[in-house]
Amino acid sequence: MFNDFEILEEDVPVHLQVKQYIKRLILKGALHGDQKLASTREMGQLLGVSRNTVIAAYEGLEEEGFVYTLQGKGSYVAPLSAATGDAVPPWKTEWSSRLNDYARQAVDLDRMKSGIRAGRNTISFTSIAPDDHLFDLDHVKRAFLDRMAIEGNVLLNYGYAKGYKPLIEFLMRYMEQKGVDLQGKDMLITSGFTEGFDMILAALGKNNGGAVLCENPTHHTAIKNLKLNGFEIKGIPMEHDGINLRELERALSERAYDCAYFVPSYHNPTGIVTSPGKRIALMKLMAEHQIPVIEDGFNEELRYSGSHALPLIATAGRGNGVIYIGSFSKVLFPGLRVGWVLADRELIDYLESIKRARNIHTSTLDQSVLFQYLHNGHLEKYLKKARAEYKRKYEWTRLCCEKYIPFARVTGDGGLHLFLEFEENFDTHQLLEACSENGVIFTPGDLFFTDGGGVNTMRVGFSRVSDEDIDKGLRIIGGLAAKQLEG
Amino acid sequence: MFNDFEILEEDVPVHLQVKQYIKRLILKGALHGDQKLASTREMGQLLGVSRNTVIAAYEGLEEEGFVYTLQGKGSYVAPLSAATGDAVPPWKTEWSSRLNDYARQAVDLDRMKSGIRAGRNTISFTSIAPDDHLFDLDHVKRAFLDRMAIEGNVLLNYGYAKGYKPLIEFLMRYMEQKGVDLQGKDMLITSGFTEGFDMILAALGKNNGGAVLCENPTHHTAIKNLKLNGFEIKGIPMEHDGINLRELERALSERAYDCAYFVPSYHNPTGIVTSPGKRIALMKLMAEHQIPVIEDGFNEELRYSGSHALPLIATAGRGNGVIYIGSFSKVLFPGLRVGWVLADRELIDYLESIKRARNIHTSTLDQSVLFQYLHNGHLEKYLKKARAEYKRKYEWTRLCCEKYIPFARVTGDGGLHLFLEFEENFDTHQLLEACSENGVIFTPGDLFFTDGGGVNTMRVGFSRVSDEDIDKGLRIIGGLAAKQLEG
Repeated sequence: MFNDFEILEEDVPVHLQVKQYIKRLILKGALHGDQKLASTREMGQLLGVSRNTVIAAYEGLEEEGFVYTLQGKGSYVAPLSAATGDAVPPWKTEWSSRLNDYARQAVDLDRMKSGIRAGRNTISFTSIAPDDHLFDLDHVKRAFLDRMAIEGNVLLNYGYAKGYKPLIEFLMRYMEQKGVDLQGKDMLITSGFTEGFDMILAALGKNNGGAVLCENPTHHTAIKNLKLNGFEIKGIPMEHDGINLRELERALSERAYDCAYFVPSYHNPTGIVTSPGKRIALMKLMAEHQIPVIEDGFNEELRYSGSHALPLIATAGRGNGVIYIGSFSKVLFPGLRVGWVLADRELIDYLESIKRARNIHTSTLDQSVLFQYLHNGHLEKYLKKARAEYKRKYEWTRLCCEKYIPFARVTGDGGLHLFLEFEENFDTHQLLEACSENGVIFTPGDLFFTDGGGVNTMRVGFSRVSDEDIDKGLRIIGGLAAKQLEG
Repeated sequence: MFNDFEILEEDVPVHLQVKQYIKRLILKGALHGDQKLASTREMGQLLGVSRNTVIAAYEGLEEEGFVYTLQGKGSYVAPLSAATGDAVPPWKTEWSSRLNDYARQAVDLDRMKSGIRAGRNTISFTSIAPDDHLFDLDHVKRAFLDRMAIEGNVLLNYGYAKGYKPLIEFLMRYMEQKGVDLQGKDMLITSGFTEGFDMILAALGKNNGGAVLCENPTHHTAIKNLKLNGFEIKGIPMEHDGINLRELERALSERAYDCAYFVPSYHNPTGIVTSPGKRIALMKLMAEHQIPVIEDGFNEELRYSGSHALPLIATAGRGNGVIYIGSFSKVLFPGLRVGWVLADRELIDYLESIKRARNIHTSTLDQSVLFQYLHNGHLEKYLKKARAEYKRKYEWTRLCCEKYIPFARVTGDGGLHLFLEFEENFDTHQLLEACSENGVIFTPGDLFFTDGGGVNTMRVGFSRVSDEDIDKGLRIIGGLAAKQLEG
């Protein structure tokens, strides 16, 4: 015994490694209860470490109750009545049979588990996460250190379910600047858009059978969360300037709905910005039919051209029927999981309790670093840089698409992605298979459709692809698409 | 117009404040579409700011689409078809009637909304959060800067639903050191204990009517989450060394259960550490009846005396029936919302998809700062300091309780709190009312009972109370309790 000790990790103190080594022997049952341990001097020789190291290790073992000391006699292994795992008969449970439909559906709808993964040199157009080369790390560091200096102890202890107060105040003013009437409204900080959306759906009653209106296609994570929460989705086709209002009116005449979900800016996946006029017309219909609206503020911050379009919640004035979910995840730093829900005060009060029940509160560190970053005035500068860069990339991608790809229609007014539609019966899954063999992947568009349609569509996310790879990747896709069209 | 401009915030650039001021006038309708704005020179004079400031403000407005420029003519207000909130008739919705029972129950069970709040000078024994004076902020700062230097870009972009890989690897080894057989097991990082627990409950089937075994009393947040997820709670009384096994056997003979929930170390609220022998006996019963166990690793790290007791998951060896939920929230920094679920690999795969559906992943910043802090070797040193301090405080609190308070029974082997039981029919809510009028509050114990019992009990959290206030506060409680007993 003791001849297989090795110093495995250079940056872990040796006495800790000795402690862990002996602990493992005790847990394995190789050392038994009340057995005397070698003296610290002897053990040091056995293991090839200093006596002081062994003293520190024995102290650590004693502190954790693995060893006891008899004055003048030495150290002994504590009798562990449950030392070895065989005291209890190990039994195997078949977990899948113990779980419910929610758990099963969560796996079935988990696109990350079924999607094609990019190999090392694959050019991937699947992501619409921000380009992390744009991140201004020094400002984030500064924000962290500033905030730690002001109230480090507060940041590391429990916070409030509603969120970090300075951040809420900042974002309330920020939303007011977008034209929102704050009267009667309140805010909850969530761990990103997805959590806000999921909690709202968990709270919403199904007075109308859980019927929900949305654009078709729409954000696939939203489709997943709607299904997981038991809602019935009614998708309305898109036009170049937003949802098709005639189709919407038809759907409204057919039945009542429990809510609607819309993405008015750089809509995922089509990239369409709903025009100001259509926003008003859409909201008039919602008001007339008294349908609560969940507005996805997705990528609103990236708007870089055209006249200003108010968020839906701003068009509603003092009305309390719109729930706005915001996030900087596609603009600033998705690693900081921070989003916000701005809505009627009474509703926020319910959501606050759900937030507390689900995970107490969003990371105070994330919230405070984000707050300090905003407070230090870095958002405007960063957005200016990001907008310019993404605009350039958008135009380059669009140019390459037009040059290489035999699509029937392209949509996308900017943002981080474009959406391509091929002629009917064209299968983008088949195209993806051929492309992935040639080192290029993208997102097939049918994932975003609420009705099984869209097999002839695809989303091209360009935010994290280099100019060179955009050209190269789209050329490959175009060539293979042309081949497929001929075949 | 323009005579009410004021520089409101010293640390926000003036041009941003001018931009926001003009934007507000546009949104209010005070400036209308296609109206010519004063020249930059004139506007500077009107507002009392430099011309360059106005130039920057106009540029910002143009970038956001609120203003357009005609070459050689000047700047104009963009026509905003949806500029004012009255384009859509504001409608009011009655949110409470649109929500479901889950939302209503979340509010009803939200203790934070009904509990007594501490005023400025109140001595509060309600918290069992760590004492933030113990936090080693410099090590946290160091950990942040170290990690940012290594992979700042990675930390701020999207991570994995399962968690930050270096942290998972570290915690797997950490759990192995506690005697856990890792074979066939895997780990999911969650935003604290509560999220892990809530997600497990959301996934668990109710093959046996949703019946759940637990200690009585038990962690009140666990009771809330069990109820919110539709489970039926069967609480088993506690003895000085853990759960009452005869009562447990009786309950097991009566019906089948879907799972059990246990807190073996410094049990909340009684402070009892389940003895090694009882852990084995308990687990033998669970194995015999094939009941999956959710183990709450609560405060395990604070164990500072006695012989080592294995976590339940370690006693199960290769069995896969135990789900262990760990967290450093009561030891290190609760503001970093990080917990972990260690369980059967197949089960973790389901939970990973639920995590992704609910909020994509836990803050990478939190996870990476925690990892680096652990990796830098600070946990051991910190725990040594924290254990010594809490032990000292525990003994002091116990002494003061014995000196001042006419309790019938006290439990609590250490940790961050004690639990007092008075003679039958004594009402601690009545006592709390009298105490809070005298500037002292505590947590009435009935909140922790699964069966409406415990009106004669209370929890005394001492972690965040000074020695002086512990003495003073418990003296007040004792005096008022004696009075109540006489009355």
